Amino acid sequence: MPELRKDPITGRWVIIATDRSRRPSDFSREPVAVSASSRFCPFCYGNEEKTPPEVLAYRVNGGANQAGWSLRVVPNKFPALGIEGDFDRQAEGLFDKMHGIGAHEVIIETPDHSMTLAQMSDKQVEDVLWAFRERVLDLKKDHRLRYILLFKNHGEAAGASLEHPHSQLIALPVIPKRAKEELDGSKLYYEFKERCIYCDIIRQESQSGTRLVTETDRFIVVEPYAARFPFETWIIPKRHSSHFEESDAPQLQNLAWVLRTTLRKLDKTLERPPYNFVIHMAPVQEPAMSHYHWHIEIMPKLTKVAGFEWGTGFYINPTPPEESAQFLREAGLG
Amino acid sequence: MPELRKDPITGRWVIIATDRSRRPSDFSREPVAVSASSRFCPFCYGNEEKTPPEVLAYRVNGGANQAGWSLRVVPNKFPALGIEGDFDRQAEGLFDKMHGIGAHEVIIETPDHSMTLAQMSDKQVEDVLWAFRERVLDLKKDHRLRYILLFKNHGEAAGASLEHPHSQLIALPVIPKRAKEELDGSKLYYEFKERCIYCDIIRQESQSGTRLVTETDRFIVVEPYAARFPFETWIIPKRHSSHFEESDAPQLQNLAWVLRTTLRKLDKTLERPPYNFVIHMAPVQEPAMSHYHWHIEIMPKLTKVAGFEWGTGFYINPTPPEESAQFLREAGLG
Repeated sequence: MPELRKDPITGRWVIIATDRSRRPSDFSREPVAVSASSRFCPFCYGNEEKTPPEVLAYRVNGGANQAGWSLRVVPNKFPALGIEGDFDRQAEGLFDKMHGIGAHEVIIETPDHSMTLAQMSDKQVEDVLWAFRERVLDLKKDHRLRYILLFKNHGEAAGASLEHPHSQLIALPVIPKRAKEELDGSKLYYEFKERCIYCDIIRQESQSGTRLVTETDRFIVVEPYAARFPFETWIIPKRHSSHFEESDAPQLQNLAWVLRTTLRKLDKTLERPPYNFVIHMAPVQEPAMSHYHWHIEIMPKLTKVAGFEWGTGFYINPTPPEESAQFLREAGLG
Repeated sequence: MPELRKDPITGRWVIIATDRSRRPSDFSREPVAVSASSRFCPFCYGNEEKTPPEVLAYRVNGGANQAGWSLRVVPNKFPALGIEGDFDRQAEGLFDKMHGIGAHEVIIETPDHSMTLAQMSDKQVEDVLWAFRERVLDLKKDHRLRYILLFKNHGEAAGASLEHPHSQLIALPVIPKRAKEELDGSKLYYEFKERCIYCDIIRQESQSGTRLVTETDRFIVVEPYAARFPFETWIIPKRHSSHFEESDAPQLQNLAWVLRTTLRKLDKTLERPPYNFVIHMAPVQEPAMSHYHWHIEIMPKLTKVAGFEWGTGFYINPTPPEESAQFLREAGLG
């Protein structure tokens, strides 16, 4: 019989098909192709002037906006939001709007066009995480910006419009709905239990082991109990912290290994699937929160279609997280 | 400059790209193919025994589960939920689950394999709406079922696994997250204003006309102010009503024309796009609500990918609803 499971943080119910569950080989595979750059690529060496001037770069040699970098952060050439101007909040009858003030940046993870995050060295992945941290610390100085989204679309089917390895940052003057749900839900739990719900989940998942993918001294990787998607995977730091950008060097170093290993497990089990990941973190202008706990949510794009889930916020997941966890554990690698 | 707009019902913010907005021809077109049935189709005449026995049928001739029907409702052969058994609600440590009690039915809209809802006669579309109504009225007698989702996935890219024209019904023992958001949001507005927010939206959109697609005595078709997707389209009844299943004959008759005309406008403007629609209605066990107003949300599937929206509940819409409304008005047809 199918099971209805409730996400303990947001209260969202999900149908988990336990009877006829879908295994990795049941999904239509469209491995993300990785090629040497054939067409013109604005993120490759020599094309630095095709992007807006860099806001951050790690480089081996060369000057600003020249070749020689190992990682480069530039404003998005076609930003979803602009940094200049005033909000000019206003009504339009009963509606509310404001100018789209914010930042939209691209983290070019490596000069190597044909690399993937999963294949990079731990050091390279760590650099990406450092760049995330540096950009958040810089942007949060702008008190208009309340929330920062750090995310990656990998593969065309997951929304990547350019092949060259990159992730993105969007800084917003508002709190996205889903972030607010997590903040509200975890606060409610804290008021009731006086404990962080994520800390409780870590303890329970570590003990039970059924949804555990891997674990280090500092991080736990689990398939969430009420997973919306097959092979949805969360990486949660064991030490309570609401703000990703407060991670220290040993933390980022370990996270690099954990993230890379998790992506490699997904690559191996699902044949290099397209995926999205999003870092869920506390609003940047808020002080440290006892009830909220930053984490990373990875969503492989396996089912070809969204279906009615878009319109309803109601999900049917054909792969129980206990089974996907087992597949990922058996993939080895870490 | 891009605009941030707030959906007045749910409070969700959306980025509307006003600068470089995408027109219909900018989307990669993959018209939904319609063919005579080539492979075996369980929904065609003569294959009635390949589905579970029908729970409703409109027929010209023939006996139950035989050819001769004009519309047929059958339980889904691979249901996401089962109607038998007890909830057996229980904890799993800090998690909550219950048995997946509910119903999952398929409305086979016509025996004609190569038809589409947009191409059907008004009478045929009206029959589909009557079938929706009848099934809801029947299922709500089961007091375990709290919410009913009526929806259609049209085209493979929108999640339809079978080509034969059909829509679906899922009856749930829980209220989906997005339905709850609308119920809560509209209640808050009602407490403040003592008016239904949907009634206010109808009045404003009808007067301003900028986001209006079409209008009859009984229905208004609009592109919502904070549309999440290009060409997202809502059909709202003008007479306040929280429960779709209380629609009477003149109402359903007019809705058939309005729905068909709207789908034909989308077909013409966007070259037969894949789409999803969902009927948003009040929980079936609740009495009539002054604050909630049933409606239909149509979401053409134009952008190939979901991107990070999945993980964040935050949407970037490259087509302002004022522009999509104009394209749909100019399509004529009604």
